[in-house]
Amino acid sequence: MSVQMEIICIGNELLIGKTLNTNAQWLAKRATTLGVAVKRITVVGDDVEEIANALREALQRKPRFIITTGGLGPTFDDKTLEGIAKALRFKLELNNKALQMVKQKYDAYVKAGRIDSAELTPPRVKMAKLPEGAEPLPNPVGTAPGVQIKVDNTDIIVLPGVPSEMEAIFDGYVATMLKKESKGLMFFEASIYADNIVESTLAPLIDKTMHDNPYVYIKSHPRGAEKKPHIEIHMSTTTKNPKAAKDRLGKAIIQLSELIKQKGGKVKLKE
Amino acid sequence: MSVQMEIICIGNELLIGKTLNTNAQWLAKRATTLGVAVKRITVVGDDVEEIANALREALQRKPRFIITTGGLGPTFDDKTLEGIAKALRFKLELNNKALQMVKQKYDAYVKAGRIDSAELTPPRVKMAKLPEGAEPLPNPVGTAPGVQIKVDNTDIIVLPGVPSEMEAIFDGYVATMLKKESKGLMFFEASIYADNIVESTLAPLIDKTMHDNPYVYIKSHPRGAEKKPHIEIHMSTTTKNPKAAKDRLGKAIIQLSELIKQKGGKVKLKE
Repeated sequence: MSVQMEIICIGNELLIGKTLNTNAQWLAKRATTLGVAVKRITVVGDDVEEIANALREALQRKPRFIITTGGLGPTFDDKTLEGIAKALRFKLELNNKALQMVKQKYDAYVKAGRIDSAELTPPRVKMAKLPEGAEPLPNPVGTAPGVQIKVDNTDIIVLPGVPSEMEAIFDGYVATMLKKESKGLMFFEASIYADNIVESTLAPLIDKTMHDNPYVYIKSHPRGAEKKPHIEIHMSTTTKNPKAAKDRLGKAIIQLSELIKQKGGKVKLKE
Repeated sequence: MSVQMEIICIGNELLIGKTLNTNAQWLAKRATTLGVAVKRITVVGDDVEEIANALREALQRKPRFIITTGGLGPTFDDKTLEGIAKALRFKLELNNKALQMVKQKYDAYVKAGRIDSAELTPPRVKMAKLPEGAEPLPNPVGTAPGVQIKVDNTDIIVLPGVPSEMEAIFDGYVATMLKKESKGLMFFEASIYADNIVESTLAPLIDKTMHDNPYVYIKSHPRGAEKKPHIEIHMSTTTKNPKAAKDRLGKAIIQLSELIKQKGGKVKLKE
């Protein structure tokens, strides 16, 4: 079975539609490419109870990884660690390693003339209060450290919401972990584009091609307006072997293209 | 208490990071503007069990509305209605009103010379098989009707994944329902932009301003790079009275701007 992951995104800005959730897409794409299967993405607001519920529910489904984004900063509405602690019935405690990371950041900001004082005020110390037993992950871009917590067979990885910080911690500390767990599995994909055919005519052709190519998943995405149908047909396969992937996808593309042409459709390899 | 809503987005393309979830943002923004509070967004794949679980869990939280997007088309992986039927222990049955809508579409496509035959093949009939007691919602843009199902005090609104179709059905049939339920409540927002101040210094100033302006929610969003901090400060309030909203936001903006300037920060009204 594939290595499974869930993503939990935290932030009112996502629930009011102010912010487009590019973090979820970025993480989903990276995890998929690294051979890990994302099973669910959950978005909740800046609310301790909501965060705790979402995490508890995800843990019950026992994915190998849960990645959260958002809610790690110094302000009152950064409630992710409090929510996680509540879900796990852990206390939040000052983590010395995390405090050291935060302190170094503010020292550097003073040196750079950005702020006057590196004093560890309560909002700054807050970022170093982690659930018991948690491990801080250095943030090469911003101030709040990421956090890793192991619960049974699940690694909870807690990342900031600022995209550049989230990406830097993922690339620095998380990607290797995922890759190791997926044991060399990789996700391969290709798309072809069909014109002059409607999706309901295409449907049985996809069924036939998937039946004859059991390792290839095929999904159609209507792209054109009603007047001018244009369908992207996305094919994917997961394997450790790039040659096998190429063969599988190539065979499915040839068969489906042929079937589409027989129905009067046109096939293009590029949009 | 505010009228609550959940959004469930269905599609493997969201879980592999192929597609950015603009539908969730669009729906969240529209619902918020109409005075409805989105409490959770859930993304699951094209899997009957996953769809059924997500819907069952959402129903248990008893929101007034659940809006789903995706998985309504004619292909094998369009599984939303099957998942919903499973969650509700309802049968899928041919809905004559929905079949009429689908038939009219294909008749029009034949007339326009887009397809040769309006024959109601199984993939086409599939789009008219709805859970018992469901009401189809006309799709002015595409083929698959939307669906409305009432369960206790929750309206489940099932929309297609193609953005133009989803938006058209929402605007045509759903927006009025939401507006009526929220009884004239509206969401008002404004942003100011702070430079020359870091988020941890800003945090207690936001606390103070929110304490003095209990109806205004304030959230800071760091936007700049580490070298040049730039923070968007987003303020919002929900009320039936536009004048009250303007007064509330104005008062909070003046107070917070003053506090930021006292700490050496700069405030701009535009980015």
